Amino acid sequence: MNKKEIYQQLANFWNNDMPFNQLVGFNITRFDNEHSEVRFQWQDKLIGNPMQKILHGGVTAAALDLVGGVVAAGNIIAHIEEPLTAETIQTSLRNLSTIDLRTDYLRPGRGEEFIATAKIIRSGSKVAVTRMELHNELGVHIAFGTGTYMVG
Amino acid sequence: MNKKEIYQQLANFWNNDMPFNQLVGFNITRFDNEHSEVRFQWQDKLIGNPMQKILHGGVTAAALDLVGGVVAAGNIIAHIEEPLTAETIQTSLRNLSTIDLRTDYLRPGRGEEFIATAKIIRSGSKVAVTRMELHNELGVHIAFGTGTYMVG
Amino acid sequence: MNKKEIYQQLANFWNNDMPFNQLVGFNITRFDNEHSEVRFQWQDKLIGNPMQKILHGGVTAAALDLVGGVVAAGNIIAHIEEPLTAETIQTSLRNLSTIDLRTDYLRPGRGEEFIATAKIIRSGSKVAVTRMELHNELGVHIAFGTGTYMVG
Amino acid sequence: MNKKEIYQQLANFWNNDMPFNQLVGFNITRFDNEHSEVRFQWQDKLIGNPMQKILHGGVTAAALDLVGGVVAAGNIIAHIEEPLTAETIQTSLRNLSTIDLRTDYLRPGRGEEFIATAKIIRSGSKVAVTRMELHNELGVHIAFGTGTYMVG
Repeated sequence: MNKKEIYQQLANFWNNDMPFNQLVGFNITRFDNEHSEVRFQWQDKLIGNPMQKILHGGVTAAALDLVGGVVAAGNIIAHIEEPLTAETIQTSLRNLSTIDLRTDYLRPGRGEEFIATAKIIRSGSKVAVTRMELHNELGVHIAFGTGTYMVG
Repeated sequence: MNKKEIYQQLANFWNNDMPFNQLVGFNITRFDNEHSEVRFQWQDKLIGNPMQKILHGGVTAAALDLVGGVVAAGNIIAHIEEPLTAETIQTSLRNLSTIDLRTDYLRPGRGEEFIATAKIIRSGSKVAVTRMELHNELGVHIAFGTGTYMVG
Repeated sequence: MNKKEIYQQLANFWNNDMPFNQLVGFNITRFDNEHSEVRFQWQDKLIGNPMQKILHGGVTAAALDLVGGVVAAGNIIAHIEEPLTAETIQTSLRNLSTIDLRTDYLRPGRGEEFIATAKIIRSGSKVAVTRMELHNELGVHIAFGTGTYMVG
Repeated sequence: MNKKEIYQQLANFWNNDMPFNQLVGFNITRFDNEHSEVRFQWQDKLIGNPMQKILHGGVTAAALDLVGGVVAAGNIIAHIEEPLTAETIQTSLRNLSTIDLRTDYLRPGRGEEFIATAKIIRSGSKVAVTRMELHNELGVHIAFGTGTYMVG
């Protein structure tokens, strides 16, 4: 199993077997050691402000937390020494967790589709830092964030 | 309508008519000008880590964002000059929105019930700052947060 | 007085008459409505870790706070309606203050010269949000930050 | 050497041999495994706003970063297994560094003396999280902060 296959397998697992991701409709669409992307569609159940039909701020934070965690996982996997087995991968990801997350809300969360992206800013054996952005399908910049993740 | 009735009415509205709050099961249980509380029950659909049965980090961030926004609203209402009508209240809350939110994850989100609390730290005519905490029903401290809200 | 002259005059004032900036050696070298830059030289008095000769984390935070505040000021000035007089400028800047600041430390603060840059991410009549970076003279990325400023 | 003596010795070292602390006048006045305190006197050179005689925001951030780092160090030392020698202490503190710092500015930094305090919120073998506050000598709450530190 090469790293590309692992990224794909993990994306499938997180897309299909993580209940909250399915509840909201988060779909990991890019995943490597430097970048990640999560997309989700507008749904009325994600409304946080009934008078204005905009996303709940918690959905935005959740999308940023997820997409940052995905690229942090990609970074962990990139540093696993061979052999890459289901076991070494699972062991490596065991400690992955969010330490802290800052979300900056720039504009109201309106759109048909939302695209969250992340990239690695600090890559280490214990802690990774990522920057994230949320745009809608028209390219409107809705939010950005910074996440610190435990990776080792 | 006195302020206590207004707080109750707004809590009812947010509990019953804000789709994402209902999706997750957020329930505002305290709401005044200085403090707020939101409770929600464990549900499998909130799982963020299927191997460990813990809350998705996004649920935690969403609960903190909501409970901070509620006390920020309480603070706005406390400063409305009479008369308190549906119109003056709606106008006063029109600009309420999260500017930024920091979430610190302290311990895995395990429990039967989760209690998010917030208090006002900075109260102003334009911006309010709140601190939030998330505990489970056993008093385990799961997360805390800091939120900056536009209030005017 | 046109806006470019105002930017220059304000930079001179902050460079020469703000005691802490002179203590540390902060020098505003770029200043307009979208971008700002602050430079400072290594000095032994800025050492935060005597065993390793690296910048005190507080110097980094101070540089990011300053450079973010400068571009926030640039943004305020850009929105002043004519006429631009010393009085209208002073009145407009009266409320400028930092609400919150997040600093992410990426690499040890080593170098001969340090360059802090900022750009506006959210521009509003009450609140502005800026992103900042600190590099050394070799282009090493030492820190980045996010600042929320009261502007109105 | 018992732990209390070590705390005292380290406080002396940081008070007397860390150039930036001396430049600003930071003085560690409490230091154990759970709490820390840093005090400093008003000096005109710390002015960040010449028209209003208030502290530069960078001084506030620096004080919070320092006092949080001190209690993080206290926490590291509390977990060293005997014997406590200069060598084991130095080795244990080698990796101590700030990962990220959030500063919330609540009120203008006015006063004769400033007191920064910190406590541990998350204590781990790799990462510690601390909360900090800054008050003046009259008890006015000027700022608070949250810091994430690498400790292992």
